[in-house]
Amino acid sequence: MVKLIVLYSKPADVAAFDMHYFETHAQLASKMPGLRRLEVSRCYGAPRGEPKFYLQAELYFDNKDALVAGLSSPEGKAAAKDVMSFAGDLVTMMFAEVTTG
Amino acid sequence: MVKLIVLYSKPADVAAFDMHYFETHAQLASKMPGLRRLEVSRCYGAPRGEPKFYLQAELYFDNKDALVAGLSSPEGKAAAKDVMSFAGDLVTMMFAEVTTG
Repeated sequence: MVKLIVLYSKPADVAAFDMHYFETHAQLASKMPGLRRLEVSRCYGAPRGEPKFYLQAELYFDNKDALVAGLSSPEGKAAAKDVMSFAGDLVTMMFAEVTTG
Repeated sequence: MVKLIVLYSKPADVAAFDMHYFETHAQLASKMPGLRRLEVSRCYGAPRGEPKFYLQAELYFDNKDALVAGLSSPEGKAAAKDVMSFAGDLVTMMFAEVTTG
């Protein structure tokens, strides 16, 4: 199992970000072919200081090829374009292979 | 469901880090009371450039109180002390509430 980890820094306008994320972006992302699970988490704290990120999304795929295929699909490109339109300066993305769990 | 998200920047000595992480630290972390699941993932790429982090661990608990109790337990303190001993300058930790998935 692999996943696309998407980390968002805290936006200036949290309410506007949340509205776009949950009402538009999550819907687009959910349509990606091969997507097995989308887990979205809101950071509420940290052991010390403020959390470094505001929101985390994890998009699970069966394997590396399926992840690439999902992102390269029309649905994946639409989701990527949408991210750049509302959070291009906030987003950090990584591909990760789940080793335990 | 909530989780402790632990992100590690890339260590100078990847082999030494991996050995300590998987053979010592993951064992300590797994002993925390209330821990429902530990998912460890290795970042292998990013849409552009190098991945910002090297490894991600997610420790799932039933709720915020259970997470605090787990971290405050002797096992939690031992795991935290161990992190600081081998990755104090690499680690970013956040508490997050899972909203979807």
